[in-house]
Amino acid sequence: MRLNFSETGKKLKSSIIRELLKDAMNENVISFGGGVPDPKTFPREKLAEIAKDVVLNEYSQSLQYGPTEGDPQMRKTYLEFLEETEGISGLNEDNILVTVGSQSALSLISTVFLDKQSKYFVSKPVYLGAASAFVMNSEQYEYLVLHEDGIDIDHLSKRLTELEKNGELERVKFIYVVPNFHNPAGVTLSLDKRKALIELAEKYDLPIIEDDPYGELRYEGERIPSLFKLAGKDRVLMLRTFSKILSPGMRLGIVIGNKELIRKMVMAKQAADLCTPSITQRIVARFLQKYDLHELLKPTINLYKEKKNLMLKELEKAFKDMKGVTWTKPEGGLFIWLTLPEDFDTLEMMDIAKEIGVLFIPGSSFSLDGSCSNSMRLSFCLPPEKDIIKGVKRLKEAVVKYGKSKNLL
Amino acid sequence: MRLNFSETGKKLKSSIIRELLKDAMNENVISFGGGVPDPKTFPREKLAEIAKDVVLNEYSQSLQYGPTEGDPQMRKTYLEFLEETEGISGLNEDNILVTVGSQSALSLISTVFLDKQSKYFVSKPVYLGAASAFVMNSEQYEYLVLHEDGIDIDHLSKRLTELEKNGELERVKFIYVVPNFHNPAGVTLSLDKRKALIELAEKYDLPIIEDDPYGELRYEGERIPSLFKLAGKDRVLMLRTFSKILSPGMRLGIVIGNKELIRKMVMAKQAADLCTPSITQRIVARFLQKYDLHELLKPTINLYKEKKNLMLKELEKAFKDMKGVTWTKPEGGLFIWLTLPEDFDTLEMMDIAKEIGVLFIPGSSFSLDGSCSNSMRLSFCLPPEKDIIKGVKRLKEAVVKYGKSKNLL
Repeated sequence: MRLNFSETGKKLKSSIIRELLKDAMNENVISFGGGVPDPKTFPREKLAEIAKDVVLNEYSQSLQYGPTEGDPQMRKTYLEFLEETEGISGLNEDNILVTVGSQSALSLISTVFLDKQSKYFVSKPVYLGAASAFVMNSEQYEYLVLHEDGIDIDHLSKRLTELEKNGELERVKFIYVVPNFHNPAGVTLSLDKRKALIELAEKYDLPIIEDDPYGELRYEGERIPSLFKLAGKDRVLMLRTFSKILSPGMRLGIVIGNKELIRKMVMAKQAADLCTPSITQRIVARFLQKYDLHELLKPTINLYKEKKNLMLKELEKAFKDMKGVTWTKPEGGLFIWLTLPEDFDTLEMMDIAKEIGVLFIPGSSFSLDGSCSNSMRLSFCLPPEKDIIKGVKRLKEAVVKYGKSKNLL
Repeated sequence: MRLNFSETGKKLKSSIIRELLKDAMNENVISFGGGVPDPKTFPREKLAEIAKDVVLNEYSQSLQYGPTEGDPQMRKTYLEFLEETEGISGLNEDNILVTVGSQSALSLISTVFLDKQSKYFVSKPVYLGAASAFVMNSEQYEYLVLHEDGIDIDHLSKRLTELEKNGELERVKFIYVVPNFHNPAGVTLSLDKRKALIELAEKYDLPIIEDDPYGELRYEGERIPSLFKLAGKDRVLMLRTFSKILSPGMRLGIVIGNKELIRKMVMAKQAADLCTPSITQRIVARFLQKYDLHELLKPTINLYKEKKNLMLKELEKAFKDMKGVTWTKPEGGLFIWLTLPEDFDTLEMMDIAKEIGVLFIPGSSFSLDGSCSNSMRLSFCLPPEKDIIKGVKRLKEAVVKYGKSKNLL
């Protein structure tokens, strides 16, 4: 059959990450690849009881179609959760939308904001899920290099000045940031930079998209107020998810923002998937009402913290004498970003790494222009501690073998 | 905040149906509006037990991220279900994709096929969810009028000849049909017309999108083989859903088709929502493995059949003497399509109907050009029998009152 795909359809490529993760199934390979949480951290007994209960006793809602905006119980409960944990108040049900994971929220943002000629700011490296949603509608991204304290604000300021001068400001739709424990970079946007970012967004009257899947997974250091908390719903659209703190299999994302923008996203969602599953929303709403999520997260946080510190220690041991190798020291989240000397190509290095038995995600997967090719993302959350030790040794071995084969070492 | 929406974003409108259904909450109003199943038909006890079991004992899959293509258990089980119930064989896991309801499948189809100048064939009246997904990417629809035995095939043939003559065939992307118990029209595509449709699709080498949410809800007459069964995966992409036969709150849609097309939709889904919830897929897979869905559906079918026959009887009583009033006689599904004399406007009539206490969906909601304004969709599945009797009486009253007010009677 002749399949006459659209321009977008023709351009679609499969995510390199998902292709690579197929190799993670091989049990002789130690994988630092996936960003998936450890299933042992899921409160399965509590969720099982609640699942049974809401299906049996709330079937008129849990098994039925629900509003596109989200289950009223879920929305109300999440707003209470937000007030309790971050002191964010003054919101009502018109400011919240429940989506099928944050990916779906990113896709709706892309739909309502981006035309072929639209510009938007993302970091370099960029979260791949956001990039893939945005480029569906526009490839006119603007990069902001990531430093240890977050995106390059000076560059943002400079580019906005230029765009204004060229009369192109109207084409700029939003600034997208992952402020806490960035995926893939692991870095956190400092308080000073948050304030500077808000100032710029206000000066040029641009919305900030604050994607924060990892904020609750802080292992050390002080919590920094969210951009949303600092600037409010008329400047910031905030994305949250239960994927990293409760269960990814529920696929529940939360969008908080300005009423008019939420309403527009609701209309786009009617065409995209009509409504988020009712059963998953009701399960998570009841869970939040019944249990203290932060209390229950403590063992998970301790587990991940120890794994993170172990990986940092092993990286120090393995790479401290190798010139030009650097890595980020995240205070939370799931990822460390390791950068090798300039001429290394981590995608090319994959074959040697797989042979030696270790998996990472090549840095070029997190850029739209093939850059970041000498970096890699390492996730510490899933492998057991002994595999972290063994895996970093293998990684060193792969780097050395590849480096020698290319006369780089 | 200045919200600088995309062209698509600016065009987005809220579905009239969802707005109208808010009125259905008023308990003095009898609603023939929603297409939602009766919650009493959901096998809640069985689903509750399975939900508990898969969360507790299969948490590594049910609570974790899953493949974009769908849970392997769900895909395997559905292919077996398809072979058992329809004798469709020769498919493997590359031919199936699990989506967040059929709406999400329709949205993915729109993404991979439609550019701004693309053409596609839909019926008039059209299923609103499909239309809203398709017009996101192209408004160049081509209408096929619906008769009691389905779309006007002669017109399709004529238009294809014209398009070929004008060199526009390349712009035509697919023919979209709801062959069984059409929403909103209630009509079924006859076997002869199915064969003629396939012949035309083969002649012009066009894919057929067969959307079949209601096929299992046949109350009388012989089952007609699906277009997929007749023409195979290299001609037909088939959409199924559990919304009308098990539970809409699970939001589970199934797409069956050609490997290359499924693969393209999987790539689009990576950007749209990454993966369908794992928990809902695992629950439904176990349900299909454990129970005979067709056996369990029998009481539901009997319930809906009686309600349908009752509504037809009441319509006959109420409208048999009113000239120019016609309605479809569905053999299954959830909807009857009632057409009033030409000058009636059922959207305008809504105010009087609400006042009298009855709700329907105005016909113009199911067209993209404001046509069908003298028709309405009536759903019989949700209201209890006494409300069907009372509701049709109120409907007649509303029609008479409106007709007199406009000097149409």
